[in-house]
Amino acid sequence: MADSGFAPMIGIVEVAALAGVSPATVSRALRGLPGVSVTTRENVEQAAAKLGYVASPSAAALTTGRTSAIGVMAPWISRWFFSAVIEGAQDVVGERGYDTLLYPLGANAGAKAARVDTRALHKRVDGVLGLNVPLGLQPASLRNLRIPLVTVGSIIPGVSGVLVDDVEVGYAATSHLIGLGHRRIGFLGQDPDNMYGFTVAADRERGYQKALAENNIPLDPALIGVTGFPVEAGTAALEKMWIECGRELRCMPTAVFAVSDEVAMGVLYAARRLGIRVPEDLSVIGVDNHDMAYLFELTTIGQPVRDQGRIAARMLLDQVRLHEPAAPEVVRMSPGLITRRTTAPPRRDPDRP
Amino acid sequence: MADSGFAPMIGIVEVAALAGVSPATVSRALRGLPGVSVTTRENVEQAAAKLGYVASPSAAALTTGRTSAIGVMAPWISRWFFSAVIEGAQDVVGERGYDTLLYPLGANAGAKAARVDTRALHKRVDGVLGLNVPLGLQPASLRNLRIPLVTVGSIIPGVSGVLVDDVEVGYAATSHLIGLGHRRIGFLGQDPDNMYGFTVAADRERGYQKALAENNIPLDPALIGVTGFPVEAGTAALEKMWIECGRELRCMPTAVFAVSDEVAMGVLYAARRLGIRVPEDLSVIGVDNHDMAYLFELTTIGQPVRDQGRIAARMLLDQVRLHEPAAPEVVRMSPGLITRRTTAPPRRDPDRP
Repeated sequence: MADSGFAPMIGIVEVAALAGVSPATVSRALRGLPGVSVTTRENVEQAAAKLGYVASPSAAALTTGRTSAIGVMAPWISRWFFSAVIEGAQDVVGERGYDTLLYPLGANAGAKAARVDTRALHKRVDGVLGLNVPLGLQPASLRNLRIPLVTVGSIIPGVSGVLVDDVEVGYAATSHLIGLGHRRIGFLGQDPDNMYGFTVAADRERGYQKALAENNIPLDPALIGVTGFPVEAGTAALEKMWIECGRELRCMPTAVFAVSDEVAMGVLYAARRLGIRVPEDLSVIGVDNHDMAYLFELTTIGQPVRDQGRIAARMLLDQVRLHEPAAPEVVRMSPGLITRRTTAPPRRDPDRP
Repeated sequence: MADSGFAPMIGIVEVAALAGVSPATVSRALRGLPGVSVTTRENVEQAAAKLGYVASPSAAALTTGRTSAIGVMAPWISRWFFSAVIEGAQDVVGERGYDTLLYPLGANAGAKAARVDTRALHKRVDGVLGLNVPLGLQPASLRNLRIPLVTVGSIIPGVSGVLVDDVEVGYAATSHLIGLGHRRIGFLGQDPDNMYGFTVAADRERGYQKALAENNIPLDPALIGVTGFPVEAGTAALEKMWIECGRELRCMPTAVFAVSDEVAMGVLYAARRLGIRVPEDLSVIGVDNHDMAYLFELTTIGQPVRDQGRIAARMLLDQVRLHEPAAPEVVRMSPGLITRRTTAPPRRDPDRP
């Protein structure tokens, strides 16, 4: 760094010179090790403060094996669920004096995962928070992390995690619609070729199927749409259904369970453009209680998103502090129905079955 | 780390033992230094690969003074503008093999800034991307970073940055409304006691004032609301105006320029609840072209948010690579009007001035 054009780096040598002691004494003094007199320690601390010297975390990491940083792996940052979980986690991580390193896996998790050199992660961070970790990433790398891992939104056998039970989520959403009297209930949320290896969508669909089966409602594949999680996919899925129905309400579902609030927002947008009235012609329920869900008067299955981040971060930092594998602990948080105005009983319409 | 309960750390010693050479040779071989035969180098590389040994970035940082990490300072993560800028920046940072460290400053930037030990930043990261850096943080710490800094959304004298000209943004938004025939134009966007030291809101307001002045429209303080940037503040500001107007349209503005799309969404929500029709009774324009703006048919002044992150990251990494201060460069990106359905000419209403 001597050739740096930026302000010169202040090192232990400069501090030692100013304090009139050896660099070794500076090191011992600043690390609080014995064999340094109180006076000397104070001299060194004053010299360090005067020069703005800060012990290097790199040096500390080599000495202690600790980096004082936590890595967060997430498929996206700008999608609400992930940014809110990260924000919650960061509250805790920052409070405890740790840095947060971000490892976004990107839209194409498979391809970009190669960029995240998980082998090297344990040299950069003391622990990893994995948000909706794609299953495809697990065997190859996550099990070899050598440092504590806590997941949010998906569970890896033998690893601690925080999640809502997504089967329960799907069951609650569908049961709400059935309770209102709907029987032609669509599910917009299948994951296109399950590209992220997430179990979230599949689990929610299983809850949907379970609620239908318990109520003796036959499963109708025509009422199921492939969306993944983008807003636009919700719009496209409803439009596709509408076209396949010959642009008539008759064969449309009377209610739709969207896999996320963002997909539900896309459905509401499509409905408005197609002239399908919500909730008169179509009830819509989502999942998340997204910060903006209320703006759409959206009925949803809410989950405590920021809290999941906070709890997972606390579990992770406890493991980091103990520095030994904890017995895997899975915290399941309760989803809850939030009823707004996008769901209502179906109209009695002689034209619809 | 020998006492770690996690899988044992593989070190240079283990690699040396397997390769049958000294640790010093392993170090030289893996760092590509001379004095190591091709055969030995290959042996060492095979041994390292077999054991899953990865050179420690901490050790590399001490040797080279580089951390291969970029720090991102942002007031929030979960607010759309910031998460989208970070996502854009991360594309570039990841592509170039750097890690991204996140330093959220939190809602109360003043208090939380203390947590971000900017003095130590230069030991953790090779450069810093500052998103809407609060001015209050600057003199004390940012100027003493000793490493490259590039800002997004705000400009610090002598520091490179990427932004849209927010005076231009405010001017464009207000001019659109004036062009439609509005003269009673509200501005919802003053920052409560300017708590973040941002210039964004103040600059947009200045653009608003400029457009009014050029069109000889007197400034009416009753039409200006304090919101900051949350959605809810937009709702509250319109409700306040409505109550102060005696719940009548007569003294209400015919159009509102909201400081951001999120504030505009809050205004639209309030309007719907109060029975104020948009755009018949009230035109609304925002700023950003938020990913969800189209769902609200919101007219907005769009800015290329992810691109700002990408460009700033490139500028920063170029400075890091050169490792010397670049001549400060400010990239101003053009905002553009995106007309949707929330703006229209004012109704001719004999009851309204």
